Amino acid sequence: MKNIIHPYKKDSQYSYTAGAYATIELLQTRPQHVQQVFVHSDYKDADGLAVLCRNAGIPLIHSDAAFRRINQKENTYAAAQFAKYNERLAPDLPHVMLVNPSDMGNLGTIIRTIAAFGITNLAIVTPAADYWHPKTVRASMGAVFRINIEEFATFKDYRTRFGQHALFPFMLDGNPLDLQNSRLSNNRPPPYTLIFGNEASGLPASYKDVGTSVRLPQTDLVDSLNLSVAVGIAVYAFATWIN
Amino acid sequence: MKNIIHPYKKDSQYSYTAGAYATIELLQTRPQHVQQVFVHSDYKDADGLAVLCRNAGIPLIHSDAAFRRINQKENTYAAAQFAKYNERLAPDLPHVMLVNPSDMGNLGTIIRTIAAFGITNLAIVTPAADYWHPKTVRASMGAVFRINIEEFATFKDYRTRFGQHALFPFMLDGNPLDLQNSRLSNNRPPPYTLIFGNEASGLPASYKDVGTSVRLPQTDLVDSLNLSVAVGIAVYAFATWIN
Repeated sequence: MKNIIHPYKKDSQYSYTAGAYATIELLQTRPQHVQQVFVHSDYKDADGLAVLCRNAGIPLIHSDAAFRRINQKENTYAAAQFAKYNERLAPDLPHVMLVNPSDMGNLGTIIRTIAAFGITNLAIVTPAADYWHPKTVRASMGAVFRINIEEFATFKDYRTRFGQHALFPFMLDGNPLDLQNSRLSNNRPPPYTLIFGNEASGLPASYKDVGTSVRLPQTDLVDSLNLSVAVGIAVYAFATWIN
Repeated sequence: MKNIIHPYKKDSQYSYTAGAYATIELLQTRPQHVQQVFVHSDYKDADGLAVLCRNAGIPLIHSDAAFRRINQKENTYAAAQFAKYNERLAPDLPHVMLVNPSDMGNLGTIIRTIAAFGITNLAIVTPAADYWHPKTVRASMGAVFRINIEEFATFKDYRTRFGQHALFPFMLDGNPLDLQNSRLSNNRPPPYTLIFGNEASGLPASYKDVGTSVRLPQTDLVDSLNLSVAVGIAVYAFATWIN
């Protein structure tokens, strides 16, 4: 029992990485949360994994049978079981907030994207896709281990904690985003929060009254942008504006 | 036989839209290529489709059985069979070029994204994911019918036709993209081509010598960006720079 990777369940206390890339990311960034690592006989660099595990005092299990349950659709040759952990967002840094994201692939891609632009704090308003699910972990390319993620039951809960953040809800009827013609004051700007709604429905209209609602410039050839693309453009625009 | 939607094959002369959104986009933008439209009894706005079809002289087939073969995984209630068509890129407009894209979902998302920023000409260097596949059409939200797409067997074939385009291959070891500090000359700039490689391998090193290779600014927290996110940021950056 102990030496088999079981299919993930949302209410379990642990999750796992499936694939070498995310497994190595996890071992390098959060070794303290890793419970055991599995390696298949078809994996090419078992020695590299062995070094990482030995240095961190983590059991490394050589077993093809361990992968049987999770490899029904695709072949995974390295995996790590880890205990889920909780973190709190940093109050003095910029945040991205996702309100009710529903797709694990999108969520993982967004985690990878915001990390690429140096945003290391992600707020998620529930209900939401599970950021610990192995599909999300894989789509994030392991970046889920490099940033702080915190879930909030309501937007109000978030706002109470981070009242000094300048809020930018992205809405199709928001003000045109025009950072190029904006100039920062000499004072240090407050940290900002970029807020995005659900893939299908966007943000509820009530967010119009929160901070400065903005929209990305776009033609009328399409209805809206893919959520992870929209987040990518926004974090790029803000990162290059602030720096 | 004629009144059933058959599973798509790459070498067939026609493809189909699966879902109301792309079907309506197709009927509104390219009615001349539509051969027949199918509607399921569970579809809510059959009258709206009937008007579009009648105006364009397209047969509308009411049949639940027609959807049986394509609805094994998800439920589609409207579909249109259309003849594939060929187009040539406009020589005086900006282009995006994808070299060997392999994922139909990414390709569709990219088509949707570039249309959103007014780029209506897409060059694809083969081998590549099939832009007529119903999965690509669906991921594009029908935007595939709003832009010109042309395939090229080699990059050289493209370059011979579009020698005046300023080329920007996106590469991890390119020059930092710094459009904010660039200023356009008073003369009208030449049309540009933004070039992106395969999801897994990027562009071959030989593209380093083509035009001005560029990279998006990113931290070392992640290896690279998702392809459709990278294309979205690039077209946003160029669109807001030029305008």
